[in-house]
Amino acid sequence: MADIDSRIEAADRIGVTTGPIRGSRKVHIASPTGSGIRVAMREIDLDPHSGEPSVRVYDTSGPYTDPNANIDIAQGLPELRAAWIRARGDVEEVNQREVRPEDNGQLGPDRSGGVPAFPNVRKTVLRAKPGANVSQMHYARRGIITPEMEYVATRENLGRERLAEYIRDGQDWGASIPDYVTPEFVRDEVARGRAIIPNNINHPESEPMAIGRNFLVKINANIGNSAVASDVASEVDKMVWSIRWGADTVMDLSTGRNIHDTREWIIRNSPVPIGTVPIYQALEKVGGIAEELTWEIFRDTLIEQAEQGVDYFTIHAGVRLPYVPLAAKRVTGIVSRGGSIMAKWCLAHHRESFLYERFDEITEIMKAYDIAYSLGDGLRPGSIADANDEAQFAELYTLGELTKRAWDQDVQVMIEGPGHVPMHKIKENMDKQLEACGEAPFYTLGPLTTDIAPGYDHITSGIGAAMIGWYGTAMLCYVTPKEHLGLPDRDDVKVGVVTYKLAAHAADLAKGHPAAKVRDDALSKARFEFRWRDQFNLSLDPDTAEQYHDQTLPAEGAKSAHFCSMCGPKFCSMKISQEVREFAKLQNQDSAGFIAAEEAEKGMAKMSEVYEETGRELYMGAGGREHD
Amino acid sequence: MADIDSRIEAADRIGVTTGPIRGSRKVHIASPTGSGIRVAMREIDLDPHSGEPSVRVYDTSGPYTDPNANIDIAQGLPELRAAWIRARGDVEEVNQREVRPEDNGQLGPDRSGGVPAFPNVRKTVLRAKPGANVSQMHYARRGIITPEMEYVATRENLGRERLAEYIRDGQDWGASIPDYVTPEFVRDEVARGRAIIPNNINHPESEPMAIGRNFLVKINANIGNSAVASDVASEVDKMVWSIRWGADTVMDLSTGRNIHDTREWIIRNSPVPIGTVPIYQALEKVGGIAEELTWEIFRDTLIEQAEQGVDYFTIHAGVRLPYVPLAAKRVTGIVSRGGSIMAKWCLAHHRESFLYERFDEITEIMKAYDIAYSLGDGLRPGSIADANDEAQFAELYTLGELTKRAWDQDVQVMIEGPGHVPMHKIKENMDKQLEACGEAPFYTLGPLTTDIAPGYDHITSGIGAAMIGWYGTAMLCYVTPKEHLGLPDRDDVKVGVVTYKLAAHAADLAKGHPAAKVRDDALSKARFEFRWRDQFNLSLDPDTAEQYHDQTLPAEGAKSAHFCSMCGPKFCSMKISQEVREFAKLQNQDSAGFIAAEEAEKGMAKMSEVYEETGRELYMGAGGREHD
Repeated sequence: MADIDSRIEAADRIGVTTGPIRGSRKVHIASPTGSGIRVAMREIDLDPHSGEPSVRVYDTSGPYTDPNANIDIAQGLPELRAAWIRARGDVEEVNQREVRPEDNGQLGPDRSGGVPAFPNVRKTVLRAKPGANVSQMHYARRGIITPEMEYVATRENLGRERLAEYIRDGQDWGASIPDYVTPEFVRDEVARGRAIIPNNINHPESEPMAIGRNFLVKINANIGNSAVASDVASEVDKMVWSIRWGADTVMDLSTGRNIHDTREWIIRNSPVPIGTVPIYQALEKVGGIAEELTWEIFRDTLIEQAEQGVDYFTIHAGVRLPYVPLAAKRVTGIVSRGGSIMAKWCLAHHRESFLYERFDEITEIMKAYDIAYSLGDGLRPGSIADANDEAQFAELYTLGELTKRAWDQDVQVMIEGPGHVPMHKIKENMDKQLEACGEAPFYTLGPLTTDIAPGYDHITSGIGAAMIGWYGTAMLCYVTPKEHLGLPDRDDVKVGVVTYKLAAHAADLAKGHPAAKVRDDALSKARFEFRWRDQFNLSLDPDTAEQYHDQTLPAEGAKSAHFCSMCGPKFCSMKISQEVREFAKLQNQDSAGFIAAEEAEKGMAKMSEVYEETGRELYMGAGGREHD
Repeated sequence: MADIDSRIEAADRIGVTTGPIRGSRKVHIASPTGSGIRVAMREIDLDPHSGEPSVRVYDTSGPYTDPNANIDIAQGLPELRAAWIRARGDVEEVNQREVRPEDNGQLGPDRSGGVPAFPNVRKTVLRAKPGANVSQMHYARRGIITPEMEYVATRENLGRERLAEYIRDGQDWGASIPDYVTPEFVRDEVARGRAIIPNNINHPESEPMAIGRNFLVKINANIGNSAVASDVASEVDKMVWSIRWGADTVMDLSTGRNIHDTREWIIRNSPVPIGTVPIYQALEKVGGIAEELTWEIFRDTLIEQAEQGVDYFTIHAGVRLPYVPLAAKRVTGIVSRGGSIMAKWCLAHHRESFLYERFDEITEIMKAYDIAYSLGDGLRPGSIADANDEAQFAELYTLGELTKRAWDQDVQVMIEGPGHVPMHKIKENMDKQLEACGEAPFYTLGPLTTDIAPGYDHITSGIGAAMIGWYGTAMLCYVTPKEHLGLPDRDDVKVGVVTYKLAAHAADLAKGHPAAKVRDDALSKARFEFRWRDQFNLSLDPDTAEQYHDQTLPAEGAKSAHFCSMCGPKFCSMKISQEVREFAKLQNQDSAGFIAAEEAEKGMAKMSEVYEETGRELYMGAGGREHD
């Protein structure tokens, strides 16, 4: 029984990173409705001497950071949503489509030479009862608040209990961000198509999350491309690693052999929505020859992946035959893999894309599993030269047309966006998308703001991502330092995720998202008060922050030092600021008093005397917390 | 003679990186005026089979990347500008102020325990003749085009000979960027204060460059803090390293002992302008006790540094007494070292800052050496919470007042800016600066767009830097990954410089700077045509780009492969795009033809036949270059 052996081997071999993120603990917050729904979050406790409250942050890491969770990769995660899905009474259990050799890239029936099959695979799967529609949008439009919506509401409200301390401040470019997120608000946003909650009924392990302009900006990490057996372990590990650092969804972009089995391992162990590009697998099934793709093979692939639990599908249905020559004029042609496959198909057959022609049939499948569309931008620009061109916008308006067709069947939609765009053309992308697609969530790759920095494209694109996130993009697809050059390894995945997390947060701040500033303020206060450990723990990547600090001042005592290696004690502006503040406090001076004093020369001599009496060093002890 | 020994030792010990940047060569372009001025640039030659012209890029690296240059760190660089300066007939040679023990932080007269003195130190230095003003602004206002202005004009015109190929495209927010830069344009910009050419007459080694809103966006790298002897080598190396990757100016922020000698080594070997913050050295001279600073000590420090050749001084003259309590209310108080020193001084004496009161006297010194002001933003915000507050803008308007006072004496000025600013408050900084300071060049630190990512602050700030550069900032002060955590090492310096170089370039693109796109387009074409080496060589950091590529596909053959490791041959969208293009060409199809064909069902069958005849693989050979 080769299968059994390889299962055991795989379970042993696949190791993932577990345990709390430094300086924080997993908490489960009860929904205020009393429904019993409990939402996972992460709590960062600060130095007890500081008197500062702990800071609660959004947590995408799932059970892997919960020391009480029992992680067994060969078993998969617990099914958080199983009871919710069944309680709605609109699904039926059916036998899972049998795995075929071509699903794994022409491996033999025993899958020898492939990756081990996932041991705990389901024999039956869920599907909507005939005539039923199990999409969150369908419930929302009928006025039903699902547990998923309630989960999202609590999850998004992070830190908003401290809202009273904050004056909302931002430029939201026409978004409608509420002070507090209620389950009803979530329902309404989903109903009008302004947000999606991607969660396939066959992926009950997922923790519900929303992608929409009026929610926190989300980020996606891409993994995949494990063509050889030993890579499954590394792809599962990359998934767990990317959500540890903040990926809100993960796309499995695997191509080559073992594509079915790799995906099963990933989905069964993923607490975040998983997206795929089904055309990749369909192409494998026809031996890589684009023109041999058929609707039947594509449809079969959709069913296969739907049953596995993929939460959103990238479908390049906007690459229409007449747009192909528009792209031929470009500096970099078509840079989307799916887009180029479909362009080749259209050209070879000289007929309209079957994805476009069969769109409503695809939608029928989507609604039977609650899979969200991620309408692919197959004609996105791949260079600064091609940004905002005719091909790109022709496709965008087609995506808008398809959005409405999907919405007609109550199927959730988001829209993929570019690509490479110079800064001055970014806003036009957002504005046209809002207009063309009726405020369906925008999901962009970067955009990269220049082409000249391969090796640093997480940064060239992080600039564009922060900006377009501010303008209204709901989810940012990360770019790693290896973009255009090679396959990201574990370190690249982390750098990509953290870069996009900071870009998304910068966008939330600029939009004036309620209480987004809580974490910035807590970190800045810790910095000012030389609470080094708090500063590390509040950062997006505590390990790197501490490591960088220790490279210059490794001694343990340096973590309580009231200065740092940049300036040393004499030049520490923060230390001097504290002295200034303490001195001002001792003299009961307020701002007006100082200004008045400036006018009054006679006051100066007196103040100077007081200073001499108080002691020239002015350093009154440990940094106080009177940051009034 | 300990001095002599240590000199020899130092000359041996100080190694710097020399040799051409991979894939490029140094060229010297003659000024079109026929004056004989030759401007150093870097030429990137592309694969001769591609037929693509070479790409000329701005070069800050000085003689270090010229294989014909003889580099001798103990000797210093050749004096490019010496004859130009003397030819104006307005300078006199005076004995250099004797180095005092306190200049190097209270070392004894033999400087033992310190760094070796620079061996080739000058005995005499230049100063304006009594009553003369040797500033570039003074010449400009009298209608004189200096060789420095001519050098700048040729230097800025990079690639503009290809301008005819380009349609200008950008949003310049009211800048006045010409198609071609003439010496007269440079003169005019300097005359009206909208640009500066920082070059002290005692730093004749510098290659003239301009900082101004209507020129290419520049970047500055900070080095310094070598308190121990062995560090001089590493600081000189960091300077050479940072200009290799693109730093347009370098600030020496050294504190502690050996400050004078360290600076001498740096200036004598620097082809880019050097900036300092003189108050740091002045503070060392009074043992680190801010309140013991006096005008006399400060003035003496200015003369000391002016004679060494510092090109611009950061002067925190805007930190006025009445503003200090405004900063005391903040989350992070005063985060500028110079600002906090002056705040402490003001408070201790309870009187107005001597920098403010003596400003016109400082200006007298500046004009005798042509040192530019970099008016320091001592009250810049150090956290998102403190951005755009009363303290910050109070100081900014004072800087505007001081700008006019400096301009009254024809002294060049730029204005330093923040700091930590969320995206939606960045533009206000630029707008207020333009208004308050009469379009004097803005020189900003970032700004950082969130506080929560220590370890990644080159990126949090790179986002803000690109944006404010687009809005009109003339020079961006880099931030390294170690910001807030420790001292940058060589690798951090490189990451900081490349990050800021890409941000500055993204800004140039968005402003619609003429021909900025040449390099992006050349790189994107190389990418599309699988010219891997050209892609590496055109990038800001060819070494890293190639290294990343080779991590996945190390074989030499992979550099000519018509696919890469991300997608492999079957999924390569660029490869498929080329096939699409070739196929379309063969059929003489244009865009209109395709669209018409779509309407005409009958055309489809025929096209399909042609395709079958042409050969299903469609791959017509190596990627063509017909990117029309």
